[in-house]
Amino acid sequence: MSLWLGQEVQAVLRGRGMTPKGFTFSAVSADVKGTGGTRPDMGLIFCDREAVVSGVFTTNLVKAAPVLICMEQAARGTLRAVLANAGNANACTGEEGLEAARVLMTEAARVLGVKADEVAPLSTGVIGVKLPTERMLPKVADLARSLAVDPGVFARCIMTTDTFPKIVSRKIGKATVLGMAKGAGMIAPDMATTLAVVLTDAVIDKQGLDIITRNAIVHTFNAVTIDGDTSTNDTLLALASGYVADNIKDIEKGIFEVIQELAMLIVQDGEGATKTVTVKVRNARSESEARRVGMAVANSMLVKTALFGADPNWGRIMAAIGYSKVDIDPARVGIEISGYPVVRSGVEAEGFSEDALHELLKEKSILIDIDLGLGPETFTVYTTDLSYDYVKINSEYRT
Amino acid sequence: MSLWLGQEVQAVLRGRGMTPKGFTFSAVSADVKGTGGTRPDMGLIFCDREAVVSGVFTTNLVKAAPVLICMEQAARGTLRAVLANAGNANACTGEEGLEAARVLMTEAARVLGVKADEVAPLSTGVIGVKLPTERMLPKVADLARSLAVDPGVFARCIMTTDTFPKIVSRKIGKATVLGMAKGAGMIAPDMATTLAVVLTDAVIDKQGLDIITRNAIVHTFNAVTIDGDTSTNDTLLALASGYVADNIKDIEKGIFEVIQELAMLIVQDGEGATKTVTVKVRNARSESEARRVGMAVANSMLVKTALFGADPNWGRIMAAIGYSKVDIDPARVGIEISGYPVVRSGVEAEGFSEDALHELLKEKSILIDIDLGLGPETFTVYTTDLSYDYVKINSEYRT
Repeated sequence: MSLWLGQEVQAVLRGRGMTPKGFTFSAVSADVKGTGGTRPDMGLIFCDREAVVSGVFTTNLVKAAPVLICMEQAARGTLRAVLANAGNANACTGEEGLEAARVLMTEAARVLGVKADEVAPLSTGVIGVKLPTERMLPKVADLARSLAVDPGVFARCIMTTDTFPKIVSRKIGKATVLGMAKGAGMIAPDMATTLAVVLTDAVIDKQGLDIITRNAIVHTFNAVTIDGDTSTNDTLLALASGYVADNIKDIEKGIFEVIQELAMLIVQDGEGATKTVTVKVRNARSESEARRVGMAVANSMLVKTALFGADPNWGRIMAAIGYSKVDIDPARVGIEISGYPVVRSGVEAEGFSEDALHELLKEKSILIDIDLGLGPETFTVYTTDLSYDYVKINSEYRT
Repeated sequence: MSLWLGQEVQAVLRGRGMTPKGFTFSAVSADVKGTGGTRPDMGLIFCDREAVVSGVFTTNLVKAAPVLICMEQAARGTLRAVLANAGNANACTGEEGLEAARVLMTEAARVLGVKADEVAPLSTGVIGVKLPTERMLPKVADLARSLAVDPGVFARCIMTTDTFPKIVSRKIGKATVLGMAKGAGMIAPDMATTLAVVLTDAVIDKQGLDIITRNAIVHTFNAVTIDGDTSTNDTLLALASGYVADNIKDIEKGIFEVIQELAMLIVQDGEGATKTVTVKVRNARSESEARRVGMAVANSMLVKTALFGADPNWGRIMAAIGYSKVDIDPARVGIEISGYPVVRSGVEAEGFSEDALHELLKEKSILIDIDLGLGPETFTVYTTDLSYDYVKINSEYRT
């Protein structure tokens, strides 16, 4: 599904001209975490002209400083650069956090010859720690100097607990759409998830880009949940450099597909995940009810641990459907798992065998198909299992 | 806090006359799970006269057969016996499940010389598997024959993943209140949690017992969450044999305290828990908003894993407060952890040290005190951390 299959893809991307015209990228190591690390953890995206910008942001009321700034910028409508860092979320840092972001934006603006307000800040990492501007500021000029057409360096520098960079692209007629995102925990829908940047050289006006972006996340980023924790920093920025005029309908489809692939990559890289799980809820009264049932099942710790252990314990799925706060009728519920009938009319399907289901649950990719028998609507949620490694990764994040 | 400190407590209970007058108990092994086990997994409570009964039941729309039956019985108002089993929830078993429960009730009624409708069924265990009446039915007469004053045998036979039986009692004037419950997973508030039985020999009428029971769970069972999964079988039954007339106000307090202690024992025995965590939310606009914030923090997988690892990552608490769907003001939020100031006005408290918090988080009992700065109301939620063992217990439940 992804075009990203290792280091060689940088070359493929370049070779195929997969970088949208107008954009260049760079990354450096600033040891943002202060642990002496040398991994690149600051990155820059530059557009050689004004790019139209749209954004979708976390619904968490505790919003990181960069989110507050980006929200204003997206409302205004154009950008020239994106300055990102991993290792520190610049969240719960108050006025000082806003000031730290602005200091970095100002320095980037100076070296790039643009305005400070045209540089969008993106941060991801630990919440509540001051941004180490003393280490970051000297690196901004390096970032500006090393800008090049390879987006892979940027996708890699925003990784935190991600195990691989998330980068996707599409050629649509003469235009190109490129998307990059980071996973992999504190992932819960409510626009959206993590940091993501979508770039295109297509000609799109502000209103069009807003609509396309907003629509694109409904069944993609907002249908993904890893742990039900909505981050303070979720940001998706879409930038259009406007070099290539093409069919807007096709561009819309291309942006949707890129965002969809990014969302799927985030699920694949869910913290500690050993399986990707699709929860499809059909025949609901409304799409929002279908979504609520899907989210209850996808976020159930008991369902997720059963999936991890390939435990054919379908009762946990029924229990989650029952407490989803949707007025379901248990006697109408049907469940198939990876095509195998498990529940019919609320009870065990005839001929059901625990052993058969146990075998199916050993697969890396699992489809839970829930039929509510109440109406015409469907929603699909994407999630993972819950493994020892999720606990490991998240109990040792900083210590 | 608990009177239960091992095997010797049975003697203590008997010696102190902690069994409410009128009630006797028994347990047998019926190998409900069908794995050849010999642990007692069926139990009986008998009252030698009509007992007034109240019940509180799961809000899950997928209700087990015994829950549906108990709801009718509690509405009607009197009982003579409670017939319980572990190893099988008799949930998602349809008409057949109701019939299986009734067959057992009828047999219990026959051997006890009461009416079938006066025998309340309680089941806990795996969802979706038929109740093995062929193994259980022959054991009912044994249960009736072995009735005795020791309640410990009953408390022990309803255990599933519990690591200790949960039994609590109080002497109130001449009356006695005795409570028994099981934990330890699929624990989420919404009345209530798991199975619990509260017995008293006090004189209480139906209406009084209903009110006392309903009020008692608000800040006890409904304030507890282990994993956010609300069970299909949650049932609390309160029975009053009416032998002892005493001050109803004192009885009310006694019942509340017994239920509160049971709730705390369930938290202590949360699946895989290494720590008990109290989340106190103060200065909220309303109690329900305080509760919602407390539950968001208590159910956050990222908060729970950080607590497990003693990771001083307070940003995860702020993030959970922010996505709780309560209209909080981040700049007013204060957090103290076990008395140590962590957050003031939404940002790190002055003088905060990660090392100091890390040390406090190594304790077995942790208090997270959240001040929303919005109003006069408070709610306290009780939970646990999330450890490798939770994943282990729940990924291997049946396989």
